[in-house]
Amino acid sequence: MKITDLPERCDTLWFNANLLTLDEAGGGLGVIRDGFIACTNGKISHVGASAAMPMHLCAGESVNCGGRWIAPGLIDCHTHLVYAGSREDEFEMRLEGVSYEEIARAGGGIASTMQATSSVSEAQLLAASLPRLDALLAEGITTVEIKSGYGTSLDAELRQLRAARQMGRIRSVRVVTTFLAAHAVPSNQDKQAHIDDVCARRIPEVAGSRLADAVDAYCDAIGFSSRQVSQVFEAARQHNLPVKVHAEQLSHQGGAEMAARFGALSADHLEHLDEAGIKAMAASGTVAVLLPGAFYFTRETVLPPVEALRAHGVPIALATDCNPGTSPLTSPLLAMNMGATLFRLTVAECIAGFTREAARALGLQERTGRLRTGLDCDLSIWDISSPGELVYRMGMNPLHARVVRGSHLENE
Amino acid sequence: MKITDLPERCDTLWFNANLLTLDEAGGGLGVIRDGFIACTNGKISHVGASAAMPMHLCAGESVNCGGRWIAPGLIDCHTHLVYAGSREDEFEMRLEGVSYEEIARAGGGIASTMQATSSVSEAQLLAASLPRLDALLAEGITTVEIKSGYGTSLDAELRQLRAARQMGRIRSVRVVTTFLAAHAVPSNQDKQAHIDDVCARRIPEVAGSRLADAVDAYCDAIGFSSRQVSQVFEAARQHNLPVKVHAEQLSHQGGAEMAARFGALSADHLEHLDEAGIKAMAASGTVAVLLPGAFYFTRETVLPPVEALRAHGVPIALATDCNPGTSPLTSPLLAMNMGATLFRLTVAECIAGFTREAARALGLQERTGRLRTGLDCDLSIWDISSPGELVYRMGMNPLHARVVRGSHLENE
Ligand SMILES: [Zn+2]
Ligand SMILES: [Zn+2]
Repeated sequence: MKITDLPERCDTLWFNANLLTLDEAGGGLGVIRDGFIACTNGKISHVGASAAMPMHLCAGESVNCGGRWIAPGLIDCHTHLVYAGSREDEFEMRLEGVSYEEIARAGGGIASTMQATSSVSEAQLLAASLPRLDALLAEGITTVEIKSGYGTSLDAELRQLRAARQMGRIRSVRVVTTFLAAHAVPSNQDKQAHIDDVCARRIPEVAGSRLADAVDAYCDAIGFSSRQVSQVFEAARQHNLPVKVHAEQLSHQGGAEMAARFGALSADHLEHLDEAGIKAMAASGTVAVLLPGAFYFTRETVLPPVEALRAHGVPIALATDCNPGTSPLTSPLLAMNMGATLFRLTVAECIAGFTREAARALGLQERTGRLRTGLDCDLSIWDISSPGELVYRMGMNPLHARVVRGSHLENE
Repeated sequence: MKITDLPERCDTLWFNANLLTLDEAGGGLGVIRDGFIACTNGKISHVGASAAMPMHLCAGESVNCGGRWIAPGLIDCHTHLVYAGSREDEFEMRLEGVSYEEIARAGGGIASTMQATSSVSEAQLLAASLPRLDALLAEGITTVEIKSGYGTSLDAELRQLRAARQMGRIRSVRVVTTFLAAHAVPSNQDKQAHIDDVCARRIPEVAGSRLADAVDAYCDAIGFSSRQVSQVFEAARQHNLPVKVHAEQLSHQGGAEMAARFGALSADHLEHLDEAGIKAMAASGTVAVLLPGAFYFTRETVLPPVEALRAHGVPIALATDCNPGTSPLTSPLLAMNMGATLFRLTVAECIAGFTREAARALGLQERTGRLRTGLDCDLSIWDISSPGELVYRMGMNPLHARVVRGSHLENE
């Protein structure tokens, strides 16, 4: 008996499946028809065509996928889903012609979310936010990024981050947290004083707490200047925290270019991104995270520069941006449809945007987001007859099961 | 003991609920906080505030709604959901820059749906279409209109209508069928010859079969002229079939005005509707059925004249237009969100558009669509804290249960 004939063991084998590996040269979907995946200790130990399956593979459990399609588990790399309170009243008022300014004067807008979020306990925050997470999981999410940013104090920010971390313990999902250090401008302070406090006190405390995996800031005329955000990023760098940025959403402020110089993981929104920003992002490998839900919900008309991003080889991810003010969206599938319909991304770009490129946006490209030996066995299994169905339909959820680090969870 | 003190009986009582009756003067939502509904023999026998509940109401079954909201069962008054085949490949090709003409030349577009639909059995058609119906039911639909129109022959049209009727038997839902008599122009015939055949042969046969509750036609430059559609409506009138029309979607053809003169139940799409059409519709009580899913999916930029429809008192309904080419949408909640976000309909208009006004568009306003004594007990019960949540969220389904003619069905 040759060594290669010895039986190989694995914990779980998924077979009779079509695969979207997202792991081919050129960035395509990496389709393998009639393929299999083997998992050992939560990692992918084999993946390929059935014809290439090891002769003596001994699986603890075997799952016949009945010809379904397996993609990497979906990754939502930009959300603000931990919050309390609700904003549908504001939505209603705006439809009836009340201006944003009037709503803000009456305590509405982001101030109302900050107030509601900061006045409840961590348990209440968790209870309010779980239905949103569950909606994402029901559509195949296995990794989700969650930002703070609605706290009226550092304590409230830490409570948001703790609630986010807790979600990863009580649900089968990898939670990646982000300290959104500079978001709304506090009403009782000037911007610069807030930035100074963020750098001198908040970032050191957050870093010490280990509650945040990255630092984010909102760079916009109604937020913080590129210079102020760069100060925040300097502080983050001193504490070894990776950075990312909300940039060029409502106007061009140079935030993406500046963030790229800091080696930012991602720059997000980008409707008003210019050529210099694109080149800087391409040079640093900073991912462009496009957020079509916010584009749609706020009736934005300026499109992100998709053609130029492609031309310069900037990786493109998509996310829900789940938040109560500008994108109350909890459907990755709908975000993909919007990416295609509104931004003219291709089917392959939309699917890569919620898998491979979303992983890259979180610095997890060697952990998840592709079907590849050695990566975590995070899968989404779909009742579809071709990959395009994931993007083309609106309001249909064909998820059959999620697999998180090897644990198979059928959809309910 | 006075007569009024005798115990009154009902089959089912829903209590501890907030109600959206859609039955108030002025066309509002008709909110009743802490209300109840009683059902006897499938009809609403009482509805009102708990304080006004009859003293001695003896219910066979009582359902504590736990403060949830009850609306009329939702009504999707415009769908093409019975079809075979799929069009995601076409969607993908178009995103990659292939023109519609090239796709049509290769046998794609509506021709591919007609070919696929006409070449399968009624059972296969049913199996292919049920997931779409089930998606609608999962979001609270209790009445659905389903059109034919993908048959390459009268036999194939009748098969589509039979499959639609069959759906109403195997699922708890009221199915209303429409013979879409003039849809795509057959490749082997001129338009007028097709219209002559529709009037002389198809409408009489469909009427005799009792498989259709109404007749519809596609009035457009790439469809049939207003004159040709009026010929179809004359034939429908001779067989006592109500009419409706696809009109003014891509250009103004006068179809809505013409249809209103026939007392059409509805005119649908209407992006290019003019003042004369609006006035004619107002005079005849013809419902404007707006289809934001198609508007979104085809990236239309001309908005339907919502302000003018309001000003003239034309009733406005909303529907999914579920179809494989221009609106692969199976979410009434998303259609409501699009109605608000894209067309600036109010929350009340969006909800009325899927209940009271949708019932009117099907001629069922004295049967369903409102919470009112004597109407069928068709309900949708929602886990929400205010009605605006139904319209504001994207991708979250808060349906708790549907009730169809008194039968309570919890959502899975
Ligand atoms: Zn954001
Ligand atoms: Zn239609």
